[in-house]
Amino acid sequence: MTIQSAIDALKPLLGQRLSTSKSDLDLHGQNESYFDPTPPDAVAYPESTAEVSEIVRTCAEHGCPVIGWGAGTSLEGHALAVAGGVAVDFSRMNRVLAVNPEDMDCIVQPGITRRALAEELRATGLFFSVDPGADATLGGMAATRASGTTAVRYGTMRDNVLGLEVVLADGTVIRTGTRARKSASGYDLTALFLGSEGTLGLITELTLKLRGQPEAISSAVCAFPTIADAVNTVIATIQMGIPMARIEFVDAEVARCFNGHAGTDFPEAPHLMLEFHGSETGVKEDAERFGEVAGELGATGFRWSDKSEDRNRLWRMRHDAYYAIIAAHPGKRAVATDICVPISRLAEAVTETQADIAESGLYGPLLGHVGDGNFHATLVVDPAKPEDLKTAKALAHRMTERALAMGGTATGEHGVGIGKKGYMEAEHGAGWAVMARLKQALDPQGILNPGKIVPDSAAPSKTRAS
Amino acid sequence: MTIQSAIDALKPLLGQRLSTSKSDLDLHGQNESYFDPTPPDAVAYPESTAEVSEIVRTCAEHGCPVIGWGAGTSLEGHALAVAGGVAVDFSRMNRVLAVNPEDMDCIVQPGITRRALAEELRATGLFFSVDPGADATLGGMAATRASGTTAVRYGTMRDNVLGLEVVLADGTVIRTGTRARKSASGYDLTALFLGSEGTLGLITELTLKLRGQPEAISSAVCAFPTIADAVNTVIATIQMGIPMARIEFVDAEVARCFNGHAGTDFPEAPHLMLEFHGSETGVKEDAERFGEVAGELGATGFRWSDKSEDRNRLWRMRHDAYYAIIAAHPGKRAVATDICVPISRLAEAVTETQADIAESGLYGPLLGHVGDGNFHATLVVDPAKPEDLKTAKALAHRMTERALAMGGTATGEHGVGIGKKGYMEAEHGAGWAVMARLKQALDPQGILNPGKIVPDSAAPSKTRAS
Repeated sequence: MTIQSAIDALKPLLGQRLSTSKSDLDLHGQNESYFDPTPPDAVAYPESTAEVSEIVRTCAEHGCPVIGWGAGTSLEGHALAVAGGVAVDFSRMNRVLAVNPEDMDCIVQPGITRRALAEELRATGLFFSVDPGADATLGGMAATRASGTTAVRYGTMRDNVLGLEVVLADGTVIRTGTRARKSASGYDLTALFLGSEGTLGLITELTLKLRGQPEAISSAVCAFPTIADAVNTVIATIQMGIPMARIEFVDAEVARCFNGHAGTDFPEAPHLMLEFHGSETGVKEDAERFGEVAGELGATGFRWSDKSEDRNRLWRMRHDAYYAIIAAHPGKRAVATDICVPISRLAEAVTETQADIAESGLYGPLLGHVGDGNFHATLVVDPAKPEDLKTAKALAHRMTERALAMGGTATGEHGVGIGKKGYMEAEHGAGWAVMARLKQALDPQGILNPGKIVPDSAAPSKTRAS
Repeated sequence: MTIQSAIDALKPLLGQRLSTSKSDLDLHGQNESYFDPTPPDAVAYPESTAEVSEIVRTCAEHGCPVIGWGAGTSLEGHALAVAGGVAVDFSRMNRVLAVNPEDMDCIVQPGITRRALAEELRATGLFFSVDPGADATLGGMAATRASGTTAVRYGTMRDNVLGLEVVLADGTVIRTGTRARKSASGYDLTALFLGSEGTLGLITELTLKLRGQPEAISSAVCAFPTIADAVNTVIATIQMGIPMARIEFVDAEVARCFNGHAGTDFPEAPHLMLEFHGSETGVKEDAERFGEVAGELGATGFRWSDKSEDRNRLWRMRHDAYYAIIAAHPGKRAVATDICVPISRLAEAVTETQADIAESGLYGPLLGHVGDGNFHATLVVDPAKPEDLKTAKALAHRMTERALAMGGTATGEHGVGIGKKGYMEAEHGAGWAVMARLKQALDPQGILNPGKIVPDSAAPSKTRAS
């Protein structure tokens, strides 16, 4: 019972679709953040739920770790094979299986990326709302309970997945949820698997809620004298009940990176980027009301875009902000933070964070989904200077402690992975032990993405193959 | 280790607040549906989380069942003490602990009812949106994942609870969620306890999302020639993206019951009851667009109400529909059904159900939250005629089978209790066994509301006290 024996047992099933080439292993040991590369021992490329089930069943027999792999865009090292094992790469399970326009839902395989899905839905008049920065897979987004710029209006993955097909730790296939819009039928297994980061099961199919393309959309960017003015505008907007579809904050440094990366000419000042969805008159009215609030708090330089190509460019730029920041610093890596606080504490959290970063001497621009109280510092570190990483981690630690002290969470949307695991006890208290009991109940051998989410005792380490 | 020894051990803790009087036991063995009275062996009235914890810890030591009790308004027998034990009545834990207008949330104890909460929030300009027909407690609504007339706009309890305090089966107290609006931090324990019907823990505190009172509200009632016309109007309205806050269907018989119970003069025809929330111009525009769609499908007799007292009367009448139907049949009881289907199947589900009821000879008016695809038949039975109950159960069975075959759920909002347990396997397949494993993990003795949700083997029956 070793990882190697599991790999040997999988070969007849998968043939060429089980890879142990160094390049493949290295690719599946990478991450977009500062964690050390941690390759698996093999990479499997299943083409069906039945194959995923067979892979997991075989790995279970051999006590071999199984780690789901989407697009590799995790910022917290979710898919790193910290105990070795087999990475299950869903890139060959990337189809849209059904679109039901009347019910405004669709059924997809986990390997489809959000941009590919948007492309497939373009002609239907419907769209899927959740949009993390990266072009992540829907399976990965579900496994990490991802969100993005539209959560303030349409919610996160928690609110936009009607049901799942999941392969459990023994290979059993279950379906959670139904195609009904709501249900009070027993434990909410859909919600349990969303955000479980591959530690309770592998998601092999998703039923997603779709939204109708609004009749009218209007986007805008405006600049503010200070961060506090921008954040206070967001708070006032929410409290007035102005229905925003997006309201995003970027600081002066991010505006500068946009100018460098996307060729814009924003003033180097804090900005809000926003969007309204609705009827023609509704959007106009919302925009006017927002303009008044923002104007009172010092907003200037409004740029409105009603054309879809302008809007697409704007949001593509926003989504690529992390990459724009990295691109402005060749050879550097980043520590991305991800706190979310009650909205009443947001201005305080942002200004304290900015002061703390300024004092540290590190470069760390701020941006975020401030309508949810969620923001990120992208702390840029030089891999050649170990003290940079130490400083960044200390900053990130103080940010997270601040968020928890304010009644917030250590991760608004990036998930736990290995980056946030150290805060699970502080955030959840005795609830963390409950998570361990759930893990133990559904994965008693601890083969599913070991080392993640639950206390380490609940996920025994395995013997690596080599 | 008996129920009686648990009761003896609880007496010093609770004194007069542990009742074994026949009237109290009978009261806590009642239900609003057709199930036989099933009293507990004692009723505890805790005043704090610490007392709830001590009650559960003591019951755990003695292997005694513990059943949470809210307002007793369950329609599926959730709180019936089918294995005896101690009912924990939350009526003395009914306070609002905090209202945070800036964050638009509040913290409440589980025993507060939705109408009492609405009263407490009246002056704040905020409201809690979930409104089941009955004046249920918030604890009960959370435990059953309740919804109501506004779910189409604001969601169910699943979407409106930010966090919980829960007493586990061994008396441990945990907190789930945070006051942040979203989080990707580990398993979604809040969602797991919502809808767990007291089988995984007792909810002792809830953090609720509040909504701002809209600037403008407009309600309307209109009549349709046929049920299919009314349902097709709902489908068209959703697909056009008209943002309804409420859209409710009642059939001709319910309209007749309203006339008898609330003194209205509705034509005896199918009706839609609806409401728009938004700005003055937005609501006006929505109402006009709806009027056009409905008019094309034959709607007549529109009655609009912009005054809050008229609206309150309208929705109070709607919420009391179940009681109005019962009141029109003195001495009768009701079998309430609660299916929810994909919206594309709704007209079919409603018309097939109506034909089936007509053929049966029973009286069973239809009404529902059709914007969610959720509707109820209230099947009136004469307790003196056992064949009535048999006919009603057969009808309810066919309705539920129809819903499952259409990709829907056996219960849109009433929950499982003992009424829907027989459909858990059909609806969830192998997922039902997963629920059993979760139950086993969190309540290995099976003392928390035994006999509910999970297969019976997972909840060993206990020795009754007397």
